[in-house]
Amino acid sequence: MGTSPVPTRVAPWSYADGRLLLLDQRLLPHEETYLECRSAAETAEAIRTLAVRGAPLIGVAAAFGLAAEARRVAERSPADLDAALSRAAEGLATARPTAVNLAAAVRRMRRVFESSAGRPAAARAEELEREAGAIAAEDADACLRLSRLGAEWLRRRWNRPDGAVTLLTHCNAGALATAGIGTALGIVRTLAADRPVAVLADETRPFLQGARLTAWELLRDGISVTLLPDVAAAATIASGKVAAVVVGADRIAANGDVANKVGTYGLALACRAHGVPFVVAAPTTTLDRACPDGRSIPIEFRDGDEVLYLPAGAGPPIRLAPEGVAALYPAFDVTPAALVDAIVTERGVSEPPHAVGLRAFAT
Amino acid sequence: MGTSPVPTRVAPWSYADGRLLLLDQRLLPHEETYLECRSAAETAEAIRTLAVRGAPLIGVAAAFGLAAEARRVAERSPADLDAALSRAAEGLATARPTAVNLAAAVRRMRRVFESSAGRPAAARAEELEREAGAIAAEDADACLRLSRLGAEWLRRRWNRPDGAVTLLTHCNAGALATAGIGTALGIVRTLAADRPVAVLADETRPFLQGARLTAWELLRDGISVTLLPDVAAAATIASGKVAAVVVGADRIAANGDVANKVGTYGLALACRAHGVPFVVAAPTTTLDRACPDGRSIPIEFRDGDEVLYLPAGAGPPIRLAPEGVAALYPAFDVTPAALVDAIVTERGVSEPPHAVGLRAFAT
Repeated sequence: MGTSPVPTRVAPWSYADGRLLLLDQRLLPHEETYLECRSAAETAEAIRTLAVRGAPLIGVAAAFGLAAEARRVAERSPADLDAALSRAAEGLATARPTAVNLAAAVRRMRRVFESSAGRPAAARAEELEREAGAIAAEDADACLRLSRLGAEWLRRRWNRPDGAVTLLTHCNAGALATAGIGTALGIVRTLAADRPVAVLADETRPFLQGARLTAWELLRDGISVTLLPDVAAAATIASGKVAAVVVGADRIAANGDVANKVGTYGLALACRAHGVPFVVAAPTTTLDRACPDGRSIPIEFRDGDEVLYLPAGAGPPIRLAPEGVAALYPAFDVTPAALVDAIVTERGVSEPPHAVGLRAFAT
Repeated sequence: MGTSPVPTRVAPWSYADGRLLLLDQRLLPHEETYLECRSAAETAEAIRTLAVRGAPLIGVAAAFGLAAEARRVAERSPADLDAALSRAAEGLATARPTAVNLAAAVRRMRRVFESSAGRPAAARAEELEREAGAIAAEDADACLRLSRLGAEWLRRRWNRPDGAVTLLTHCNAGALATAGIGTALGIVRTLAADRPVAVLADETRPFLQGARLTAWELLRDGISVTLLPDVAAAATIASGKVAAVVVGADRIAANGDVANKVGTYGLALACRAHGVPFVVAAPTTTLDRACPDGRSIPIEFRDGDEVLYLPAGAGPPIRLAPEGVAALYPAFDVTPAALVDAIVTERGVSEPPHAVGLRAFAT
C-alpha cells in the first residue's frame, strides 16, 4: 500500500500504521508537503479544506481516515469504539456534499466495522485497513480500465488510429484526484502512450486545480500541457484545435446528468455547438442511481472568500476585489445528459440515451 | 473637460495643458493613482500595459495623448512637428489591435493636424485638444443615449415596467471603459435609476476586470454587485436567476459578429440555451464596416505570463502554475451575430439579422 501500481510518478497519498499521509494540494505546485492525518477529524478537515480533493480520492482518503480512527481509539471499550467510529463516519460522509464517492466509501467502511462488532479492536482496525486498501486498489484498477475504454472510444470517434491530438480538460481529474492514473487524465495518459498528445488545461478558478494540479501532474509525467484561462475555452473549442474535451465527474445521476467542477457545463455547450466530442470519465462509484436526475444532486456552495482572496504562501492572502463586494461560489454545475457524448466507466462506455446506457453498468 | 457630465462618481481620466491623467486601472481597487502622460509614447505604453483599457476609453486616451504630444513638440520646426505627430499617431493606433475605436480616434485626430498644416504650433495643439474633447464628449453622449435605448429594449423584452432584476456582465464596459457612464454598465445605471438592479459580475480572468474594476465602480455608485468566478456563469444563467446578460464590445463587424473580452462567446451560448436575452452595448464608433465578419477581426494574443502570474502590489508577482508550463491568452473572442439578441448603439437597437439592422446606424 502506498505505492501506486500504475504508470504515473504522482503519489497523492499513502497509509501505514494508523497514519494517513496526504499530499497537500493547497500548496502545489510550489511545495510538495504531505499532511499527516491520524484521526477521522483530521481527515475530514483535509477534505473540507481541499488539502485532498477529487471525487474518487476523497472516498479513498475517508476510508483510510476511518481506519486511522480505528487505530486511534483501539484502546477504548467496544461500545466507545463503536460510538467513535460511527461519529467519525458521519463526520467524514458529510465533509463535502456533492461527490457521491465520499458517502459511498464511508458506507462501505461502516458495513465492515458494523459486521465486525464484538471482535478485538486490533482485528477490527485491520479489517478496516484492508477494506480501505481494497477501495483504493479498485479505484486504481477502475482508472486503468476506463482509461483504456475511453481511449478506444475516442480513437474510433476520431476515425484514425494515430496522429497528434489536442485534448482540453477542466479542473483535475488525474492521479491527484484518484488512487490511480486518473479518469480524464487517465485517458490522456493512455492515449499519450502511443501518439503525441497535447493537453489544454483550463486554469479552473478559483482554486486553480488546472493551473496548479493538472499542469503539475502532466509535467511530472512528461505530457505536454498548456494553460488556458477558463474564459478562453469556448473560443478555443470554436477554433477547431480541440479533438475532444475530457473531464471527470463528482456525481452522475441515473439519467446521465453529470455534476462536475463548475465550468464543465459551459464546455459541454461549446462542444455541442462545434461538434467536438464531450467525454465524461468516472468510475461506477461515481454513479448515483438514487439520484434520478441532476436536479436532485446537491451542489456545494463554498465560501465567497475563496473567490475574493488568493492564498499567497506564507504571506497574507491577496484580496482580488474591493472591500464590500460579495462573491458567489457554486463549486459544481450540472451538465445535462443530452450534451454528454460518452460517459466512460470501467465497465463500459455509455452513449446517449444515458438513462439506458448507464443501466448496463449497475453495481 | 476633466469632469464627466454624466451621473457617475467614476472619473478615469482628465486632461489639461498637455497633461493627460489616467486612473491606473492596474492598481484598482487597492489604489487610486493617476498616471501622468505628457507624450504619445507614454500614452501608448499606458494603453499597451492596460493602465487604461476599454475600447471607447482607449480611443479617448489616444486622442488626448496626441494633443499632449502636440504640446510637447510645439517648439520644433513645422516639418519636425508633423513628423513627430505622424509617428505618434502610428504608435498609438497600433498599441492594441482589436478595439476599432483606437484606430478610428487616431484617424480622426490625424485629419485635424493634417488639415492645420502651416498654422502656428500652439493653434494646432489647441485644435487637437478641441478634437480630443469632442471625441470624449461624443462618447459620453453616446453612452447616455445607448444606455436609455438599451434599458427601454430590455423593459419591453421583459414585458414589465418595473420590478427587481438581476443582470450578468463580463469584463468592464463601464465608466472605467468609456468617457461616460459606460455601455453595458450604462444600461445598468439607467435601469437602476428606477428599479432595484443586482449585478452579477464575472471576475474575468486573467486581468480580473470584473473583480477589480466592475465591482469597484458599481460599489462606488451604490449599485448592488456580486462576483462570480467566470466558470460559474453558465450554471447561473441556467438557474433562471439572470434576466439578461449585457456586455460591451471591442469591435463589431458589418454582419454583427462581436469581438469582446474573451469569455463573452461562452456567455452567449449559455444565454441562447436558456432563452436569456444576450445584449451587446457599444457606441457606433465600435462598428467596423470594413470588417465583413468576425473572421476578419484581428484577435490580440497577450503574453502567457499574464495568465501565469498575478501582480501582487509592491511585492513580486505570484506564480500561479508550475515552472515549465506555457499559457495561451487570446484577449478577445468572437460571438457570432446570430447569438446576439440586441446590439444597442446610440443610434438605435439592432435585432437579428444584424447585417440589416446595423446598416441603419452607418456613420
